[in-house]
Amino acid sequence: MTPYTPPLRDVRFVLEELLEHGSLSLPGFEEIGPELADAVLEEAGRLAGEVWAPLNAVGDRQGCRRREDGGVTLPEGFAEAYRAYAEGGWNGIGVSAAHGGQGLPETVASAVQEMLHGANMALGLCPMLTAGAIEALARHGSEAQQARYLPPLVEGRWTGTMNLTEPQAGSDLSQVRTLAVPDDDASGRYRLRGQKIYITWGEHEAAENILHLVLARTPDAPEGNRGISLFLVPKYLVEDDGSLAERNDVTCTGLEHKLGIHGSPTCSLSFGEGRGEERGEAEGAIGYLVGELGRGLNHMFTMMNEARHKVGIQGIGVAERACQQARSYALERVQGRRDGAPCVIAEHLDVRRMLLSMRARTDALRALALTCAAQMDRARHALDEAERQAAQARVEVLIPVVKAFSTDQAVEIASLGVQVHGGMGYIEETGAAQLLRDARIAPIYEGTNGIQALDLAGRKLARDGGAALSRLTDEIDATAEALAVSPELRPLGESLAGGVADLRTAMGLVLARGADPERGADAVQACATPFLSLAGHVLCAWQLGRSALRAEAALADGSGDADFYRAKLAAAEFGLRQWLPEGRARLAAIEAGMGGLAALKPGHL
Amino acid sequence: MTPYTPPLRDVRFVLEELLEHGSLSLPGFEEIGPELADAVLEEAGRLAGEVWAPLNAVGDRQGCRRREDGGVTLPEGFAEAYRAYAEGGWNGIGVSAAHGGQGLPETVASAVQEMLHGANMALGLCPMLTAGAIEALARHGSEAQQARYLPPLVEGRWTGTMNLTEPQAGSDLSQVRTLAVPDDDASGRYRLRGQKIYITWGEHEAAENILHLVLARTPDAPEGNRGISLFLVPKYLVEDDGSLAERNDVTCTGLEHKLGIHGSPTCSLSFGEGRGEERGEAEGAIGYLVGELGRGLNHMFTMMNEARHKVGIQGIGVAERACQQARSYALERVQGRRDGAPCVIAEHLDVRRMLLSMRARTDALRALALTCAAQMDRARHALDEAERQAAQARVEVLIPVVKAFSTDQAVEIASLGVQVHGGMGYIEETGAAQLLRDARIAPIYEGTNGIQALDLAGRKLARDGGAALSRLTDEIDATAEALAVSPELRPLGESLAGGVADLRTAMGLVLARGADPERGADAVQACATPFLSLAGHVLCAWQLGRSALRAEAALADGSGDADFYRAKLAAAEFGLRQWLPEGRARLAAIEAGMGGLAALKPGHL
Repeated sequence: MTPYTPPLRDVRFVLEELLEHGSLSLPGFEEIGPELADAVLEEAGRLAGEVWAPLNAVGDRQGCRRREDGGVTLPEGFAEAYRAYAEGGWNGIGVSAAHGGQGLPETVASAVQEMLHGANMALGLCPMLTAGAIEALARHGSEAQQARYLPPLVEGRWTGTMNLTEPQAGSDLSQVRTLAVPDDDASGRYRLRGQKIYITWGEHEAAENILHLVLARTPDAPEGNRGISLFLVPKYLVEDDGSLAERNDVTCTGLEHKLGIHGSPTCSLSFGEGRGEERGEAEGAIGYLVGELGRGLNHMFTMMNEARHKVGIQGIGVAERACQQARSYALERVQGRRDGAPCVIAEHLDVRRMLLSMRARTDALRALALTCAAQMDRARHALDEAERQAAQARVEVLIPVVKAFSTDQAVEIASLGVQVHGGMGYIEETGAAQLLRDARIAPIYEGTNGIQALDLAGRKLARDGGAALSRLTDEIDATAEALAVSPELRPLGESLAGGVADLRTAMGLVLARGADPERGADAVQACATPFLSLAGHVLCAWQLGRSALRAEAALADGSGDADFYRAKLAAAEFGLRQWLPEGRARLAAIEAGMGGLAALKPGHL
Repeated sequence: MTPYTPPLRDVRFVLEELLEHGSLSLPGFEEIGPELADAVLEEAGRLAGEVWAPLNAVGDRQGCRRREDGGVTLPEGFAEAYRAYAEGGWNGIGVSAAHGGQGLPETVASAVQEMLHGANMALGLCPMLTAGAIEALARHGSEAQQARYLPPLVEGRWTGTMNLTEPQAGSDLSQVRTLAVPDDDASGRYRLRGQKIYITWGEHEAAENILHLVLARTPDAPEGNRGISLFLVPKYLVEDDGSLAERNDVTCTGLEHKLGIHGSPTCSLSFGEGRGEERGEAEGAIGYLVGELGRGLNHMFTMMNEARHKVGIQGIGVAERACQQARSYALERVQGRRDGAPCVIAEHLDVRRMLLSMRARTDALRALALTCAAQMDRARHALDEAERQAAQARVEVLIPVVKAFSTDQAVEIASLGVQVHGGMGYIEETGAAQLLRDARIAPIYEGTNGIQALDLAGRKLARDGGAALSRLTDEIDATAEALAVSPELRPLGESLAGGVADLRTAMGLVLARGADPERGADAVQACATPFLSLAGHVLCAWQLGRSALRAEAALADGSGDADFYRAKLAAAEFGLRQWLPEGRARLAAIEAGMGGLAALKPGHL
């Protein structure tokens, strides 16, 4: 198993050289200089590489076990590694100071998350879900709820969960059936009864308490989305002074046996198993309404952007680790000959092609995700309202791409990583296969990648007629023009210009089709996934174009490590000339339209 | 878990309607009519669906266990299912009558294999390896060896293995170190000592005996490939009357813990652990030379074509099962609404797109693999020597494509199958994830797909200057022209014509680059994988074009199930207009050439 090396140099390349630490100049980040940001990254890299990464294989091998008492036993070392994270103050780095966090920019927080997920994705899910709970309470919780629940969550003493899915309600949350009945004692308490599934880190003992955020329906609420509200259901009830009281009626009834992320307990939770009745109390788990009645789905969706960005970041973390592991194996495995002598397989051009393909894509995805993070910072912190709005519009276009494209690519990158290892890649002890198994969940959860594509090609394009994406394509044009100025980079610029032209054509097609009142929705859905893929390729190619410009400049002024910048040029060349054309091929699929798709009898698919 | 339905209608579509049972008109198949071929398929489908398929999940869950005594315990039911196969006479269907088989055409035998692998790939590996041993002995064994060893192998009473890989010798078999020393008693026996790894079905008790075919080096043999010979090493030694004698000195020293195919024991075998010495005999496992001294690798490679074809078929079997399982789930899972009412997810266009993508690709891969099988029949059985040679040349171009493209696509198809299931796809009990895990070995073994690409773009193109592939492209042109005649199919014909033009351009580029004496090998290697992918897409699109022509004709004359043919048209349209462009995008990668690939410092990859 290859140790995980925090990709500090590559992260700095994006934050310092491509984004020029733009987030740090925003209001609210006055006290955070580049040195501090860098020190944070270095320290996080140490935690990721030295504490979390060595447990990655342990978690996979041991998995989680549900005990007879309903408790969950984590893999060895996981609870300690989580506490090292919490005690190091890492849980609050991205949380605003107003809520007790350190308030670092999203760019820095995202880079930290990438390293933690790269080191141990299963463990990284625990704080990722907690961040969602913090976000939900910070946005929609009452002052009293914030005062009571946010400090322990931000400190990481408690963790959070998101309880959305039920057996009949997955992508379609309108089907939620869990019931929340108000106590008739004017206490504001509700009693929840129902079954939730796929609850990540739904039960464990690494933290003192767990706050479950639960979508449930109230009695007499209308059918569908507007009948669903958001509730807070603590594992242990909390006294007014913040101390823990008795166990709430929430039970882990099972753990899923999954393809990967074995170290992350995926629980079935039962709310209100009738223990109240046994004790002569009202039945159901005790919960508290968060935000407005009937607005549960809206409240969930307002924090969806952050969560989806984080899943994209997860994919990048795993992709980076797959790159490292494949390169390391290719540099030590001797097989075949070159110039008459035995050589390592990294000398063979076909293996190099695989490694460069993995590296170029991972670099591009990271640059795109951190560019999106920089816009998230701007959307929250820019002084100017119009600037904030423009940034938010850009974020909302980028998010489905970052989520879906990063995770689809991560699966492919991890699979190529297996391939580089040859037969060894298929043996579990090598660790390459675990990365593929772990990565495979990311295109599914937090909204499947199909849902992301619908969000982009349907909602996000339609609501502003493609204005936000058009502004992005203008900037990509500018990068293509800048590349064309350089004799060496001109072919890259031509490729990028072609890609962005294709994206504009595709956008026009999607908008035109969506305008058909009869079949518009189907027509957009039929080409949504190819559209997202095309957008992802072009946006990533843009990042590689910017990398190439930066690398050429650095090589010209002779600063820094020339081999590093030459590698960035090679990655950009690969990405723009070999990878981007695959994305451009999606235009043909979009042009082809629905074809026989709508008329086909499903039984004949 | 969805039961496996033998895809008889789809197989018949290829064998009867596309290939018009051409193999049955060859000399040697006079007694096999379409009815018999069809009855064989139906009976094989029953074995696959009813006996093998229900054990697929059992094998995955239980895996194989190595006992203290060195024996291997198979998953429950595997030995019985293997015996049902052997006793049904299935092991000999593709073996010529001269060697005791039924001598069915490769087309029919391949269709049977697809169903068995689709039902249970891990179990299918056992006869697949035996077939390799039969082939090796039938081609290179002495008459005495054939008389002694072939009958029990063909009957399936014994199984066979291929012992190639050693820890330091994987893709580069010239590094084999296992030593075979002749006994000095003129018995013709050798004593083998060494370690082999990744030996599929290397030890088990489902059959009476196991014949290991082993690559080993003789004393004083020259370095490299020419020092390697092929040996036959039975698990139990065989008396002159064919009865079994004592155990040979071959020991299973370990089983690999693999990503998938858990029901297939992947063994480390130790030859000559010194038991001979303990008994005062010469040391080493007793083995017999097969074929000529120093020609072991050549002998292996002569049967490589068949083995690689079979791995491609495996991929198709798993892809078919993934299609079935995804469709079945999509037809029962209710989620979301359509026209105001709850609907199954197969109604959503994005899900249909996934299902049609899986189906179109699987259909195309099957048609290509069976077209290749028809050429294998012709290469062996055609009366005319020139026809046999032309067929063989075509087979040799098609084989690396069938192997690599089918298996790469199978991984993607199985991964899409997981995606169709949403969260359920990530839960092991669903079975979709197993298909992805099982499929992932096929791009690796029997020559990695990188090796296949080198074989195609290097050896196979260079040796005839692309003549065999050019003849194929002429036929593809003819199909494109036929499509262009039909108003409905004209866009498909245009797409195919564009694809074949790209393939010709790419072939010209690869040949020109390969001619450079200095850097030709690197230049070809750098674009070999994109070249194979382009060829695979075009060849598959060709098959879909042929399917479309056939379907249109059938719909025109009103024969058969119209929905079936309409589905074939939809698949062809999808494949030619949406899938083929992805392959055509590889031309850009080939045109880009080596780029910075050769100069890149490996540490920066």
